[in-house]
Amino acid sequence: MSKVYAVGIGPGGEEFFTQEAKAALERADVIAGYTVYVDLVRDMFPGKEFFTTPMKQEIERCRWAIETACSGKTVAVVCSGDAGVYGMAGLMIELADQYDDVEIEVVAGVTAANSGAAVLGAPLGHDFCLISLSDLLTPWELIEKRLHCASEADFAICLYNPRSKKRADYLQKACNIMMEHKSPDTICGWVKNIGREGQEYNIVKLSELENEPVDMFTTVFIGSATTKVIAGRMVTPRGYEKHEDSYFRGNI
Amino acid sequence: MSKVYAVGIGPGGEEFFTQEAKAALERADVIAGYTVYVDLVRDMFPGKEFFTTPMKQEIERCRWAIETACSGKTVAVVCSGDAGVYGMAGLMIELADQYDDVEIEVVAGVTAANSGAAVLGAPLGHDFCLISLSDLLTPWELIEKRLHCASEADFAICLYNPRSKKRADYLQKACNIMMEHKSPDTICGWVKNIGREGQEYNIVKLSELENEPVDMFTTVFIGSATTKVIAGRMVTPRGYEKHEDSYFRGNI
Repeated sequence: MSKVYAVGIGPGGEEFFTQEAKAALERADVIAGYTVYVDLVRDMFPGKEFFTTPMKQEIERCRWAIETACSGKTVAVVCSGDAGVYGMAGLMIELADQYDDVEIEVVAGVTAANSGAAVLGAPLGHDFCLISLSDLLTPWELIEKRLHCASEADFAICLYNPRSKKRADYLQKACNIMMEHKSPDTICGWVKNIGREGQEYNIVKLSELENEPVDMFTTVFIGSATTKVIAGRMVTPRGYEKHEDSYFRGNI
Repeated sequence: MSKVYAVGIGPGGEEFFTQEAKAALERADVIAGYTVYVDLVRDMFPGKEFFTTPMKQEIERCRWAIETACSGKTVAVVCSGDAGVYGMAGLMIELADQYDDVEIEVVAGVTAANSGAAVLGAPLGHDFCLISLSDLLTPWELIEKRLHCASEADFAICLYNPRSKKRADYLQKACNIMMEHKSPDTICGWVKNIGREGQEYNIVKLSELENEPVDMFTTVFIGSATTKVIAGRMVTPRGYEKHEDSYFRGNI
């Protein structure tokens, strides 16, 4: 049985790799992935063979990885963040089913929702939704429906792919939908280039979000009604503070 | 400025630690946390001082950590999964605001949604929601509202704290709500003791989920309408397969 690893490497730097991800890449003969992500790991794994494809060639990339594994090499496909969150893991399992004797092992990583949240504070400390604003593979109507329902139920919301050159007004459209249900004063935040050179972030109100310098390397966080700013950080409380009397058992 | 680290350690074993989490715990003089989680790391960090409190003493634990940091020690509070997802990060930021010159550094980790998903396949490969079924700190009515809206918008849903002895029927209640909007044939999965001794999982239909041996150490996954079982694994497709013609640029 040949094996291909679908490896989530977190936001970029080596410090965000799990030991499991590092071990999988060390075991691999070939590391494949989107050019930008392979470039993040190239220097960490000298002596490996690398195979890169640009964006929109995900199927080609995953087929190549599976066929290369079938020919006897150990292959790892790297994904930024987690391999299972808008990553290659699902596609690899689907494609592997068309071949004999190849198995996909998914190695989880820290997705941008969590690594970005750590930069801002704790914006996802209670129930939350992840929504991608990219309509390349998803009908825009379904994205709108999810924005409506997530806002109506007062979830904190984390947006992936919030804006690109071709989709310059999608974040604005999303903000307008969310403001049908959430207050324009809802606390929001964004983090650009999480854990990489040029990391930037800001905390603003929902009404201000559409004017922020958000791009496709940015992850956006919209709070729930309970989200607040504490000492310059964005926090969605779990609810402990309401229970301090019953929780607190005396000084130590 | 004193510093306290809020460290997500992933599901348990050392292989799931990020390098950043390991480094933070190595830098700490004292490692504090819920007894169960501290026991997971005790052997990895010999020579450290440990401070544990049982469940429901989160405020006490975090205050102790902050006050100990103010007295000059480096303190790390460990959380399973990610420190910001139903973890201690938010509470620590709130409490630290009551003290002078103490800062909370959040170190992200792999939350059970992602580590459990890797065991099952790729159940969270498209938009999803995280909902905790614990009503200890959240009104049950809000949990119900979120289950309704998440199901109505056909999100994949990941449930934390799906069942406990005191809340034996909560998963059943949640399944009934979800089946008002989702087909009873919707693909679901669960993983118990993720990455720890005794890891177990199963893939079933939504109508069968309430009868599965789900407990408080289990993470539950409910698919979207597109979720399927492929070679015994649970996959929520991103949507690439619909675009094979336009994506696939020829054989290599």
